[in-house]
Amino acid sequence: MIPVKGYAAQTPETDLAPWNFERRDVGPHDVQFDILFCGVCHSDLHQIKNDWFPGIFPMVPGHEIVGRVVKVGSHVTKFKVGDLAGTGCLVDSCLHCENCKQDLEQYCLEGNTQTYNGMERDGSSPTYGGYSNSIVVKEHFVLHISEKLDLAATAPLLCAGITTYSPLRHWKVGKGHKLAVLGLGGLGHMAVKFGVAFGAEVTVLSTSPSKKADAEALGAHHFVVTSDPEQIKAAKNSFDFILDTVSAPHDFNMYLSLLRTNGVHICVGVPPEPASIHPFSLLGGRKSVAGSGIGGLAETQEMLDFCAENNIVSEIEMIDIKDITASYERMQKGDVRYRFVIDIATL
Amino acid sequence: MIPVKGYAAQTPETDLAPWNFERRDVGPHDVQFDILFCGVCHSDLHQIKNDWFPGIFPMVPGHEIVGRVVKVGSHVTKFKVGDLAGTGCLVDSCLHCENCKQDLEQYCLEGNTQTYNGMERDGSSPTYGGYSNSIVVKEHFVLHISEKLDLAATAPLLCAGITTYSPLRHWKVGKGHKLAVLGLGGLGHMAVKFGVAFGAEVTVLSTSPSKKADAEALGAHHFVVTSDPEQIKAAKNSFDFILDTVSAPHDFNMYLSLLRTNGVHICVGVPPEPASIHPFSLLGGRKSVAGSGIGGLAETQEMLDFCAENNIVSEIEMIDIKDITASYERMQKGDVRYRFVIDIATL
Repeated sequence: MIPVKGYAAQTPETDLAPWNFERRDVGPHDVQFDILFCGVCHSDLHQIKNDWFPGIFPMVPGHEIVGRVVKVGSHVTKFKVGDLAGTGCLVDSCLHCENCKQDLEQYCLEGNTQTYNGMERDGSSPTYGGYSNSIVVKEHFVLHISEKLDLAATAPLLCAGITTYSPLRHWKVGKGHKLAVLGLGGLGHMAVKFGVAFGAEVTVLSTSPSKKADAEALGAHHFVVTSDPEQIKAAKNSFDFILDTVSAPHDFNMYLSLLRTNGVHICVGVPPEPASIHPFSLLGGRKSVAGSGIGGLAETQEMLDFCAENNIVSEIEMIDIKDITASYERMQKGDVRYRFVIDIATL
Repeated sequence: MIPVKGYAAQTPETDLAPWNFERRDVGPHDVQFDILFCGVCHSDLHQIKNDWFPGIFPMVPGHEIVGRVVKVGSHVTKFKVGDLAGTGCLVDSCLHCENCKQDLEQYCLEGNTQTYNGMERDGSSPTYGGYSNSIVVKEHFVLHISEKLDLAATAPLLCAGITTYSPLRHWKVGKGHKLAVLGLGGLGHMAVKFGVAFGAEVTVLSTSPSKKADAEALGAHHFVVTSDPEQIKAAKNSFDFILDTVSAPHDFNMYLSLLRTNGVHICVGVPPEPASIHPFSLLGGRKSVAGSGIGGLAETQEMLDFCAENNIVSEIEMIDIKDITASYERMQKGDVRYRFVIDIATL
C-alpha cells in the first residue's frame, strides 16, 4: 500500500482536516501520479455535507486532479513516468456495457465509480479524491494534459470543463446558434468560453449585474440581468439553447419562455429540489428540458486537446489547502472568479 | 351571416345545450363545409370547465371536424363544392412569422387562432367549434379527407391523430426504436397505430391490465402494467422514447428511469399540475423531457394522406349529441374505446 497525505471530512458535521490514508499499490494497468493541483467543485461541498445522498466517510473530496506520473504498471502503454496526467470525476466503470463500449463511461449501466465518495468495483474499497498528494488510477481513466497550458488552470477542465463541453458538442451547438449560459460560475464561465470557441452567439443570464464586464471579458456577446423584467421580456423566444449551470432553485418555466421553437434547456447543475415544469411550457414550442452529466473518457481527452489547441483554461484563484473551509464559504456566496484550485504543495 | 345550429356551454357551470348562432359569410379565401362528424377530445371538457384558463362563453367545443364542402370563396383553389373537408385545432395564424413560414402554424409567434374558445385575428370575434352543423374556415386551414376512409373514424385524426403523428415524425421514431406509449386513450391508441406503422417496437404502459388485449389488437408488441413493480423493474433503461399521452398527474421520474441513455420523454398530454422532475433523472443518462403540440397544416395533410394509404383511422364510438354530457362522464372515467364521435345528423 502507498501512504498518502490528504484532507478529509470525518463526518458531514466536521470541517475538512488533515488525514493520512493509504492507496492501493500500482497494479499492471494502473498509473500513479503525484497531485500538483486540485480544483474545488461545488459538488465537493454538497457531498461532504450529505446534501444529495448519504456519503462514505471519511471523505477526501476532489475530482479535478492534475499532476505528474511517478509510476506506471507493467501493462500501461499510454503513460510514462514524468508525463503530466489528470483525472476527473470517474476512476472506473464496467467497461463492457453498451454505454461503456460507446465511450459513455459516465453513463455506465452497472454504475460508474466516482473518484471520491464511491466504491471501487470490489464494492468495499472507498475511493478518495484529489485533496491529497498522490493517486493511483486505472490507465483508461487517466487523461493526458498538455505541457502548453497553465497546469493549475487546467485542473477545473476535468469537471467544469467537460461538463459544459460535452452537451455543447452533443447538441452540436455552434455557428448560427444563440446560446444562453445560465449562471456565471465555475461551469458557466467555461460554457461561455466553449460556446464562443464553437462559434455560437453567447448570452450570459445572471442575477448579478456586477458580472457583466467579466462575461464580456470571457467573450460573451450579450448579458441579461434575469431580475430585470424588461430585459427578460426582450429575451423571450430568442435562444436555441440554454445551458443551465445553476444549482440553486430557479424558475424553469420562465427560462423555457426564453427559448425559441425547438429550443433545448440543458441542465448540468443539480438544484436541491425537483424542477417544476408546466407541460404548456414545453408543448408551446416543442421545447425540451435535458440533462447532461460530465463526459466519457474519450470526449474528456478530446476536450483537453481542444483546450490545448485553442489555449483555453479556467479562470482560477489558487488557494492554500488550509483555507479550504473559508473558500467553501466564499464559493457558497458566489464569491469566486471562477474556480478555486488547491495548490497541493501546501498540503 | 350564416345561421348555424350547435351545442354550447353558456358558462363553466352549465352543461352543453342547444344554441343557435351565426358564422361569417364565406369570404374570397374561405371554405364553408357542413359538418357531418365531430370528435370529442378531453380538452373540450377541460375548456368548458375553465380547467386551464378562463374561457370565452358561450363556448361551442369541437376541433375534430369533418364534413362536405357546400360553398367556396372566389379565390379558393384547393376545394370545390362536394369535396370532403376537415378542420382540426386551428383556424388561423399570422402566416408570416418565422414559424408559420416553416409550416409550424401551431407555434405561430403571434399566437394561433384556436378553432373554438379563441378569437379571430380581429381580436373580437369568438371562434366556435364543431359541435355544430356548419363551419366557415380560411382555405389554408382546411384539410382534404380521403373518400377511402370511414369518415366518422377520420374525425379524431384532426387532433388525436396529428398530436401523436407529429412528434413521432419529428423525433424520427421508427425501425430499431423501442417506443413506449404511456396511456391508452384517444391519443394513446393512435400513437400505437402510428408507432407500429413506422416500424418501432411498441410497448403500451398502462395502469389498466384490462387494456392488454386491446393494446395487442392495435398492434402493440408489449404491455406493461405500471402499477406492478416487477414489470416496471424489468422495463428499466429500455425505451428510446416514451410518448406520454396522460393528462392526469403522474410520476415523471419513474417513467424517466424506463428510458435508455439519450432517451426522450415526449409530453402531448397536459396534466393539471406541473411536472416535478429531479435533475438527476435527466443527468443520469442525458435524457430529455420534451413537449409537442398538434402539428402544422402541411403535416396534418401528410398525416391524413398517410392514413388513407395505410388504412389508419381511430377506434370510435358514435354518439348522439344529446348524450354529450353523459359521454363526458364516461370519458373522465376512461370508459371509451377510444374516441367518442358525435353524429352531427343528430343535432
